[in-house]
Amino acid sequence: MSIGLVSLVGAGPGDPELWTVRARTRVETADLVLYDALVDADAVRAIARGQCFCVGKRAGRASVSQDTINRLMIRAAKRGKRVVRLKGGDPFVFGRGAEEALALTMAGIPVEVVPGVTSAVAVPELVGIPLTHRGIASGFLVVAGQSGDSLEAAIGAVRPNTVTLVVMMGLAVRSEITSQLVAHGWKPETPAAILCGVSTANEWLWTGRLVELASAEPPAGVAGLLVIGEVIRVREALIAACSDPSTGSGSSQAASGGERAQRVEGSERSESREDRVTYGRS
Amino acid sequence: MSIGLVSLVGAGPGDPELWTVRARTRVETADLVLYDALVDADAVRAIARGQCFCVGKRAGRASVSQDTINRLMIRAAKRGKRVVRLKGGDPFVFGRGAEEALALTMAGIPVEVVPGVTSAVAVPELVGIPLTHRGIASGFLVVAGQSGDSLEAAIGAVRPNTVTLVVMMGLAVRSEITSQLVAHGWKPETPAAILCGVSTANEWLWTGRLVELASAEPPAGVAGLLVIGEVIRVREALIAACSDPSTGSGSSQAASGGERAQRVEGSERSESREDRVTYGRS
Repeated sequence: MSIGLVSLVGAGPGDPELWTVRARTRVETADLVLYDALVDADAVRAIARGQCFCVGKRAGRASVSQDTINRLMIRAAKRGKRVVRLKGGDPFVFGRGAEEALALTMAGIPVEVVPGVTSAVAVPELVGIPLTHRGIASGFLVVAGQSGDSLEAAIGAVRPNTVTLVVMMGLAVRSEITSQLVAHGWKPETPAAILCGVSTANEWLWTGRLVELASAEPPAGVAGLLVIGEVIRVREALIAACSDPSTGSGSSQAASGGERAQRVEGSERSESREDRVTYGRS
Repeated sequence: MSIGLVSLVGAGPGDPELWTVRARTRVETADLVLYDALVDADAVRAIARGQCFCVGKRAGRASVSQDTINRLMIRAAKRGKRVVRLKGGDPFVFGRGAEEALALTMAGIPVEVVPGVTSAVAVPELVGIPLTHRGIASGFLVVAGQSGDSLEAAIGAVRPNTVTLVVMMGLAVRSEITSQLVAHGWKPETPAAILCGVSTANEWLWTGRLVELASAEPPAGVAGLLVIGEVIRVREALIAACSDPSTGSGSSQAASGGERAQRVEGSERSESREDRVTYGRS
């Protein structure tokens, strides 16, 4: 029996239209799909012909351990199966993808990696925040909000207010991050944003100032991403341009055929006064 | 006549299988596609039913100016056309995408942004380099190598050897970058990589040490990306695991059906001794 293949595949920020063409093909033809909690399970099951299992934390149940996931993948591949390990965002950005690749390779299993649309970039982008912008930010730093020590090291690594800061999975530690950033010299009034569920039905967002981050109240139990930097003003400029009647506005309503191009709505659930621009959802 | 729509779409690092599903749909249904030089023109023309123009630098000819591109998009949208502006990588990562979105919005044109697989993450990933890895790097900084001043500011922004550094379009300035990094305290022996044309037929890569960056000789006229940091050792670990006969190797040859899963080959064109792991190309 010939050995199978494990594909470590990124599923992007949520919306299945932001899967890559190759991700779609791999899911369609897989014998076994192991997907994370943030992946759209309906989209997986709609096109997969093989077995599908959620291995992430879901509805209060604990996630399957990394060791068990590795064992499942290795066993199936040794039996000649095509395995897809489908992960939210990109598999190599805080996704332990490289650790899985190493475990599989050391077990003699062929591995391919299929990059995905990383949430670090796409989530801000989908609400009108570019991580870089000429004259405003010439670079961006991406860190994860999980670990206290490594978070502090990463925050200490960068000079205050020089680049855009993205904190993935940063919701639970936003108070700690605010204190550390201000202690490191970041201006308290630096624009900041909390972005949850962007590109899914559960989208929630907040914008304000760095010092207000801790007082924002996102819905319970969601994952979220923090953006800190002047680039958030680009979003405000986009909203202002949409709303300005002198620009031949109403443009946001003019997109035809069910497109929601630039949609500007009042904020309903966020703490601070803010408007929303949503791009690219159909 | 109802107004059209401009979609700012990311095409990923090169391989059209790394376009998103939505990118593909938008190109298929567009009346007008304006694509950059790094986008696969054959792939665009194979599926587009509308007009297609390359607006990037190509075969020695100058690129179309940003003003002209904006005017073309605005004129077509005002005539009710669906316009796709197809850019390499992600449109909001050093792609002037947000500037185009602002220009369009201020002209009253509806805009959507379709995020792409950013080369900053995917190019290293496709050769086995994760930008983050537990115990090695807890964050990554992305800058562009174009502008001297802003490059220096970005490099000065980060403490030496704390996070992975990605320099997009960094080939021409690699000597300057090396000097600046070493002057800022980066260890001269920090692992470094030059990655050109990854996920295309013109793939070329080099790995070595930071101080050797300037002496590497990539082919003329190509665009490339630099990665600097200890995470490059993860690639070496993957290659070692592939080559180790005790791990039930031969796995790299075992992928079936035209898949090139983990492919290990001798280096032909790079300056330093190195092997290659290529992922995810079919």
